[in-house]
Amino acid sequence: MAISMFDRFLTTPEMAAVFDDAAVMQAMFRFEEALASAQAEEGLIPAGAARAIAGACKVQLYDIGAIVDAGRRAGSLAIPLVKELTKTVALYDADAATHVHWGSTSQDVIDTAMVIVTREALALLDDRLRQLSAIMLSLTQQHMDTPVLARTLMQPAQVTSFGFKLAGWLAPLVRSRARLREAAARALQLQLGGAVGTLAVMDQAGPAVVRRTAGSLGLKVADMAWHTQRDEWVRLGLEVAVLTGSLGKIATDLSLMAQGEIGELAEPSGAGRGGSSAMPHKRNPVSAMIALAAFERTPQRAAAILACMGQQHERGLGNWQAELAEWPALFLSADGALAALQEAFAGLTVDAKRMRANIDSLNGLVFAEAASIALASAIGRPAAHALLEQLSGRVVDSGRPLGELLAEHVKNEKKLRDCIDSAALAALFDPIRALASAKRCALEQLSALRTDYPTFLSKNDNP
Amino acid sequence: MAISMFDRFLTTPEMAAVFDDAAVMQAMFRFEEALASAQAEEGLIPAGAARAIAGACKVQLYDIGAIVDAGRRAGSLAIPLVKELTKTVALYDADAATHVHWGSTSQDVIDTAMVIVTREALALLDDRLRQLSAIMLSLTQQHMDTPVLARTLMQPAQVTSFGFKLAGWLAPLVRSRARLREAAARALQLQLGGAVGTLAVMDQAGPAVVRRTAGSLGLKVADMAWHTQRDEWVRLGLEVAVLTGSLGKIATDLSLMAQGEIGELAEPSGAGRGGSSAMPHKRNPVSAMIALAAFERTPQRAAAILACMGQQHERGLGNWQAELAEWPALFLSADGALAALQEAFAGLTVDAKRMRANIDSLNGLVFAEAASIALASAIGRPAAHALLEQLSGRVVDSGRPLGELLAEHVKNEKKLRDCIDSAALAALFDPIRALASAKRCALEQLSALRTDYPTFLSKNDNP
Amino acid sequence: MAISMFDRFLTTPEMAAVFDDAAVMQAMFRFEEALASAQAEEGLIPAGAARAIAGACKVQLYDIGAIVDAGRRAGSLAIPLVKELTKTVALYDADAATHVHWGSTSQDVIDTAMVIVTREALALLDDRLRQLSAIMLSLTQQHMDTPVLARTLMQPAQVTSFGFKLAGWLAPLVRSRARLREAAARALQLQLGGAVGTLAVMDQAGPAVVRRTAGSLGLKVADMAWHTQRDEWVRLGLEVAVLTGSLGKIATDLSLMAQGEIGELAEPSGAGRGGSSAMPHKRNPVSAMIALAAFERTPQRAAAILACMGQQHERGLGNWQAELAEWPALFLSADGALAALQEAFAGLTVDAKRMRANIDSLNGLVFAEAASIALASAIGRPAAHALLEQLSGRVVDSGRPLGELLAEHVKNEKKLRDCIDSAALAALFDPIRALASAKRCALEQLSALRTDYPTFLSKNDNP
Amino acid sequence: MAISMFDRFLTTPEMAAVFDDAAVMQAMFRFEEALASAQAEEGLIPAGAARAIAGACKVQLYDIGAIVDAGRRAGSLAIPLVKELTKTVALYDADAATHVHWGSTSQDVIDTAMVIVTREALALLDDRLRQLSAIMLSLTQQHMDTPVLARTLMQPAQVTSFGFKLAGWLAPLVRSRARLREAAARALQLQLGGAVGTLAVMDQAGPAVVRRTAGSLGLKVADMAWHTQRDEWVRLGLEVAVLTGSLGKIATDLSLMAQGEIGELAEPSGAGRGGSSAMPHKRNPVSAMIALAAFERTPQRAAAILACMGQQHERGLGNWQAELAEWPALFLSADGALAALQEAFAGLTVDAKRMRANIDSLNGLVFAEAASIALASAIGRPAAHALLEQLSGRVVDSGRPLGELLAEHVKNEKKLRDCIDSAALAALFDPIRALASAKRCALEQLSALRTDYPTFLSKNDNP
Repeated sequence: MAISMFDRFLTTPEMAAVFDDAAVMQAMFRFEEALASAQAEEGLIPAGAARAIAGACKVQLYDIGAIVDAGRRAGSLAIPLVKELTKTVALYDADAATHVHWGSTSQDVIDTAMVIVTREALALLDDRLRQLSAIMLSLTQQHMDTPVLARTLMQPAQVTSFGFKLAGWLAPLVRSRARLREAAARALQLQLGGAVGTLAVMDQAGPAVVRRTAGSLGLKVADMAWHTQRDEWVRLGLEVAVLTGSLGKIATDLSLMAQGEIGELAEPSGAGRGGSSAMPHKRNPVSAMIALAAFERTPQRAAAILACMGQQHERGLGNWQAELAEWPALFLSADGALAALQEAFAGLTVDAKRMRANIDSLNGLVFAEAASIALASAIGRPAAHALLEQLSGRVVDSGRPLGELLAEHVKNEKKLRDCIDSAALAALFDPIRALASAKRCALEQLSALRTDYPTFLSKNDNP
Repeated sequence: MAISMFDRFLTTPEMAAVFDDAAVMQAMFRFEEALASAQAEEGLIPAGAARAIAGACKVQLYDIGAIVDAGRRAGSLAIPLVKELTKTVALYDADAATHVHWGSTSQDVIDTAMVIVTREALALLDDRLRQLSAIMLSLTQQHMDTPVLARTLMQPAQVTSFGFKLAGWLAPLVRSRARLREAAARALQLQLGGAVGTLAVMDQAGPAVVRRTAGSLGLKVADMAWHTQRDEWVRLGLEVAVLTGSLGKIATDLSLMAQGEIGELAEPSGAGRGGSSAMPHKRNPVSAMIALAAFERTPQRAAAILACMGQQHERGLGNWQAELAEWPALFLSADGALAALQEAFAGLTVDAKRMRANIDSLNGLVFAEAASIALASAIGRPAAHALLEQLSGRVVDSGRPLGELLAEHVKNEKKLRDCIDSAALAALFDPIRALASAKRCALEQLSALRTDYPTFLSKNDNP
Repeated sequence: MAISMFDRFLTTPEMAAVFDDAAVMQAMFRFEEALASAQAEEGLIPAGAARAIAGACKVQLYDIGAIVDAGRRAGSLAIPLVKELTKTVALYDADAATHVHWGSTSQDVIDTAMVIVTREALALLDDRLRQLSAIMLSLTQQHMDTPVLARTLMQPAQVTSFGFKLAGWLAPLVRSRARLREAAARALQLQLGGAVGTLAVMDQAGPAVVRRTAGSLGLKVADMAWHTQRDEWVRLGLEVAVLTGSLGKIATDLSLMAQGEIGELAEPSGAGRGGSSAMPHKRNPVSAMIALAAFERTPQRAAAILACMGQQHERGLGNWQAELAEWPALFLSADGALAALQEAFAGLTVDAKRMRANIDSLNGLVFAEAASIALASAIGRPAAHALLEQLSGRVVDSGRPLGELLAEHVKNEKKLRDCIDSAALAALFDPIRALASAKRCALEQLSALRTDYPTFLSKNDNP
Repeated sequence: MAISMFDRFLTTPEMAAVFDDAAVMQAMFRFEEALASAQAEEGLIPAGAARAIAGACKVQLYDIGAIVDAGRRAGSLAIPLVKELTKTVALYDADAATHVHWGSTSQDVIDTAMVIVTREALALLDDRLRQLSAIMLSLTQQHMDTPVLARTLMQPAQVTSFGFKLAGWLAPLVRSRARLREAAARALQLQLGGAVGTLAVMDQAGPAVVRRTAGSLGLKVADMAWHTQRDEWVRLGLEVAVLTGSLGKIATDLSLMAQGEIGELAEPSGAGRGGSSAMPHKRNPVSAMIALAAFERTPQRAAAILACMGQQHERGLGNWQAELAEWPALFLSADGALAALQEAFAGLTVDAKRMRANIDSLNGLVFAEAASIALASAIGRPAAHALLEQLSGRVVDSGRPLGELLAEHVKNEKKLRDCIDSAALAALFDPIRALASAKRCALEQLSALRTDYPTFLSKNDNP
């Protein structure tokens, strides 16, 4: 396993496998095979040579550790790989060996290998996004009418619908899925330019070989070799970082709502999950933990790949090599976070009673704004505001509910009593009624997502 | 001027003006005016109130410093601004004053103001990108046949066309321009959600007010208030960071080619530009300097805005405020870099003789690969490769040109003499001929850009 | 004011003044004055020239904006400053004008100016650290016996002493104060090396001029000009970043404990502070907000100054200039955070009743580990652990306190009844008793701080 | 190997071994063994239990992969490790098993293990710093009289001594070695606090167990458990980042001086090192490449560990786990860079002839400032400056050396001829003479280092 236990702890086995050394090296061999095959089809090398090369392009034939060690010395991992491949081909067909890697350069094989494994990494992310979005959509629909505190600056503010919060978590997932596909369509390009990106060795045949190689690998043909123009590639990496940012937002809220003292949400429990033998009451939010760790680390990786963009001339010194080493972490973190949240939300405990109790414990203060607005039509805004401010002070001092104090006040003041409908007033303090506008917003969000991303959220998928 | 002299040194006066305090505050007032006007049109507030509010929405009526100081204490810059606005409106129309900022929240006014000024910032970048692209395109077309060393790992590698290098610099500029427009189309959204993003106060009328306010400000209507879901906004910021990355690549190459000992490029000189009184021979690459400084700083700002994405619940504590403060620097740096490079390339000295001399000083070694391939057809690759390796060693020892040594060798070896055309062999050592494939790649790059981005690069604009 | 309103919102007026353009430029003039004076004392220039130069070294004589604008074009802010200074001196004494800035270079004047203002910035931080430490120490001593929940992974874990938490917040402040002084002692060095750092122009007299200039500015003499060897300088900046990290830890805990639903701490309220007109119950943690914003931004600035270390040859291109522009933000953020937390802790509301209620609401589960250990001596660890696990389950299901269930269980089981002292058992569930070890740790922490940092924490300052 | 091939490519096998999973896990077992032994000595657990535990504390007895997989689910790598250890001990001694990990918490074992392996990592860095410093010192002494161009803003500026450049590279290495030891003395602390850092379980015996455990592991006793107060630990990590910054500076200069067109330095060549089969003239600076890659990546890791400092309450959620995963990279990069530069400088080719030729090619312009100063005493500074500016222009136009033009001019102007010693004038254009002040500075630097760091640079070690 080509990552440390602290990294493995924070990602998924599936994503670790995508970027495993053997997988990346196999992708390097796939490039060599596809290149030779394309050159044979274009008549640049004998068909037999291409076949012989293909036969040797199997990672299990090689000593990965030895290649890496020789690569350190050579200054490129591709140099010893090509050397070993050439030797292996030569065992069977000495002439074919002279055609290995022809017209290509180290960066062609390494970058293309990264593109190939990144495509698999993206497929993993896409699938997890699909699953997490589906879970989130279902919860959104379920909890449209569940009142919960909205909180601003980490303080209880007003009442909202838990479905509204869920819709807010869902939307960026759908957007990320769409944007990742767009970025992938641009960035998953073959790298093939030869020594300095000009395809000089293959001369006139170059473009055709490029098209054939790209075709057989299922990659886009780049306008020009992108050895040191990494913008589309970097955009793809940044898109993954944005996804992890949105997951960090979800994990932040989850961790806050799962605090023992708030207790509105809880991650699933189960044998060996998030427990503490010494503290049997603990149900640690381990999914939030993994997503938050990803969220802490990712901005720095994004900065690293941006900082590597200033690659000198036709091949970078240090920055290209650094970018390669930084790249996988973006995906390892994102997948760890996605899988963790998927597990958390699939088995999420939503404690609607606790949500309600947390609202109730504020003694109606969260409805002060609404009450003020309702009274304004009768007594004008300034007077309404002043009244509510005064009553709110009494709530804090007395511990009595605002609704009660207000009802008393209205009853006692003739001017108010005459124009205020006491039932309507009482309704203002009803959490379910209070979430109406939140629900409307959430439904509009879902409807907009269905319109804009019909592939990801079906129109028929109505609540 | 709301930035330090060290920042001003590295940006443009135009971009500094866009993000000047007064400009941002005026944008806040524009939001308040547009909101009141929309509410009047929807019948939520009297038309006269909207007019009174509009009359007070002029930044010059207010003491910016006092608002900022009060904002520190209040925990929001919008709170004292709204207070002062209300007071001012009340001087003329006490009733109108009760309608100020109605149904809105601090974050609505601040975020929307940032969107408004960011739109202007993007217009500046777009225009500079247009100009720099045009200059770069013209240079590309001019230098298709100018041979220059291609360099890999900061070592001379082979011969390429300077037009090829220029096309490589141009393409990311065109892509950035297109991507910035796409990102802007998604991110330049009105922020309007009220206290917790649910438009609760305006109730049923909320969506209509949103549409009208967005319409009058020329902004997109968001699916839902994006108080703590910043993904589209962050993508826009990252797109600016990618641009600065591509500019950093150009500046890196420029600074390397402008080194006194290489001398292939020089920034324009002129009174007070990049000189040194003590060292009259110096012509400092001050444009490259500014672009490199932007390139050093920007990845960290990108990381900062990504790190701010985990905003808690319905309004972030610390992270939203940090994002606001980090945001302008992305644009200040990008515009500084763009303007600097525009100036550099508009007056660029291209020393084609020096480019040629640098090639010549390598004694033909950069053509070894080409020669090896040419001989391969006659004597097989292994023999050809071995021969060139041996002759290259002699070049290094003797200082004689490879072409000469090879011609001698061919003349002396009957087997070679018979099958090698000595004129063709000599042609391999001709830099102009050597750049043919580079030129082909560059032309393809231009053609692809014209196809993909017809708005930015006209088809008729042929070399 | 040379920073944006979003930055001003997050820092203090005092620190903003330290890095104000006029202050930095005045420091540049102080360098020029000190240099001339030193050269006169060494007989390199006439004493009258030094006096004439000193007379012109007053920032109020100059148009800062014009100097900055010319600096952009020149590629250095010092070039126009020296030019203007020279012109001004020449108005009075044409000969003296030829001695301005003699033997020095742009970087000497700018770096030294930054050192001078940074010294003031450090004095500010030191003083605020002194004040915040004193407040924190006093609170620590006050709350040694205040029980509060310890929380791990954002879940209630056990009972600790609030004094223990406070001691944990205090210690890094004391360490930061000491380390900042150490780093300052190394980094506050004169920069004076001339064009390429070799003091070539002043020849033999160079070292003496360096010593005199440093002496009159109160700065350390560097071993060698540090134009492009920034390690000590960077260490100083990083030390500020570590401080902000420790403040971020405090602010994180404060914001969590101040959540309405937890309510253990509250920032001071007061006119215009952290309120919300629409939501009268809100008491926003605006100090935590400012400290958290500083904490979000600072790691990126630290990264930026580290990334700028690779300065080329004898003067950096882009990276030096970027470092200058990034530097002040480290201090602006740290001071903003320090001042905010000082205000918060000076007026902190500590709700010990609420702390106790939060403990009680867990029904004794937080004492499960302690009870298990107590029983282990009687029935062995495995049996004790199993028993507690079972009873804890019943607590969760029944809502009855663990202490009660355990007492019943012991009473009913003869084997336990005989060997367990029921009073001792009950005492395990007493929060005050439970914090004994926490208190011991906190007292040890205070004692260690007094021993290690006697300057900052007096030994007589006992609780 | 617990790192990817792209990471392995950029580090050393030695450092990779230090942070290998098995090594870190063995360190975790060492903690458990030392804890049990300390508890036995304090009479908290039977001596036999400690012996039984010690017998099972061997990483080779365990399935690392299985522990990591279970750790993911548990939310901590220590939970399954302790479980497996307990099981293994129980096979031999059921009672002893109940004493495993007693009074400790996951974070105690993991943090302490990181401290233990970090101590080894620091020993490696220290030794490499020793070696690289020795090589650099020797080169410095060798090249005191080797003239080389000083360059500012990437342009040739004046003449300096190559020994001066070398002394500039050496000094930060010596400082880093000293500072790393200081930081290590503070940060290599035992972590032992139990569940919430209060040593509650071990009660009165806690402090003694801490002292014994620290003693047997050779670690410092912390004032207090530092579970969430990471400042000293972070300082240590940042100190490594500063080292990598200084190495990045060296690598930057090395890569610039090794450019083919400048050719003043070359990394050692040799079988398989930095070559290119296709381009036999290439001698790639692969050591500079590795050091530059380290330099690109490290600032981001420094930012990451700073960003992780805001750990919540008594154990962080996400940030602690992220810090652990980020930590090793600081050391892997630094050691890769150190080893690479050690190899480069041990076999460095210094081409003094080329250095001289690069000076000569500037036709004496780099001596203009010196000539101007020399003439100033005769004709005043303004006239001298104007003359040199005029002559410099003629050098650029005519290609004739400044010294020659100036000599002619002096000969032709009676006023000058009478007061200028033509031999002294000619001497100004002598590179050896021109480096005198640089040499003086370099010698002072060495002397200061010997005084300040006598352990690292012996006084007897004179040139």
